[in-house]
Amino acid sequence: MKELEDRIRKEGRVFPGNILKVDSFLNHQVDIKLLDDIGNEFYRLYKFAGVTKILTIEASGIAIASMTAYHFQVPFVFAKKAHSANLGKNVYTSTVHSYTYNKDYPITISQDYLNERDTVLIVDDFLANGKAAEGLLDICKQAGAKVAGIGICVEKGFQTGGKELRDKGVRVTSLAIIDSMSDHDLTFRSHVTEQ
Amino acid sequence: MKELEDRIRKEGRVFPGNILKVDSFLNHQVDIKLLDDIGNEFYRLYKFAGVTKILTIEASGIAIASMTAYHFQVPFVFAKKAHSANLGKNVYTSTVHSYTYNKDYPITISQDYLNERDTVLIVDDFLANGKAAEGLLDICKQAGAKVAGIGICVEKGFQTGGKELRDKGVRVTSLAIIDSMSDHDLTFRSHVTEQ
Repeated sequence: MKELEDRIRKEGRVFPGNILKVDSFLNHQVDIKLLDDIGNEFYRLYKFAGVTKILTIEASGIAIASMTAYHFQVPFVFAKKAHSANLGKNVYTSTVHSYTYNKDYPITISQDYLNERDTVLIVDDFLANGKAAEGLLDICKQAGAKVAGIGICVEKGFQTGGKELRDKGVRVTSLAIIDSMSDHDLTFRSHVTEQ
Repeated sequence: MKELEDRIRKEGRVFPGNILKVDSFLNHQVDIKLLDDIGNEFYRLYKFAGVTKILTIEASGIAIASMTAYHFQVPFVFAKKAHSANLGKNVYTSTVHSYTYNKDYPITISQDYLNERDTVLIVDDFLANGKAAEGLLDICKQAGAKVAGIGICVEKGFQTGGKELRDKGVRVTSLAIIDSMSDHDLTFRSHVTEQ
């Protein structure tokens, strides 16, 4: 998605440890026009997949899920992190390892909002090691829900998450894939736009 | 907002300690049609206020902010909770007391995304004690930003937050105000729709 790549090139900032900050338009301040276009692009890619629900993890995934759900006109569900005393006992739960914070955290979804009649599109802002996506796939498996695919805004193509998910046969559609990153340069993977 | 009140009546669940769960349509699973109507209603209420930015706190506020920003066609910013190592040093910060979890937590916004040229509409899903809203007001004050008002989906009118904010002269527009709550009954404050 050229608009997103251009924006990353222009405003993305690289920090030691392969950290890419897109705070000015995607996950702290959010450009609503870009978010709308992202939602529309996921809709274009998955509109024939029979999607009944958009799924993500709090917090920054919620913005992506909102505008994606808007284009699909289906509900979205966000998995809660950590101890959600309010969710009750009938929950699906999985464990996600965060490399950023070097710890495991639980993710939880109420069983009321995901079941075997659902076809799910998982969305998130970033894909690097793929641990969050794997946690959501695990929860979909527990629920017996079908997964249409995973829609990602920015994939760190030099990390292994995307490859591992695709090797499992999961459809992963990333709107921008970064193949290499340094303080002074970003290289995007050129890709024929998926139909 | 009748649509929201009806939904709360139909699907809201009350738990001991004045906890009202609206998980099925507002802050775990989200009904995108309702969210769109909420965003549109905030736009109707504040469209002449010169709003340049929508402001909220992660996580569940992000959904409300997304569709509100969509109607205003302005960016939104969500304050981060806790320790955001990634945000850098130039931040506004405030402390919010959570009665749900009985602890204080810091909220943080990068100074890059809020300043004295902004007119802000603060939005959130719930208003009870008003501590989150006060934290955001404090940050707006630090930034020198003007606050057009606070748009709330569900106000617990039997708690003091709304009154305290209004007594300070802040415009608070709640789409549903609950005056009393028991296991078997919810009473909404009747209010002439604000123009």
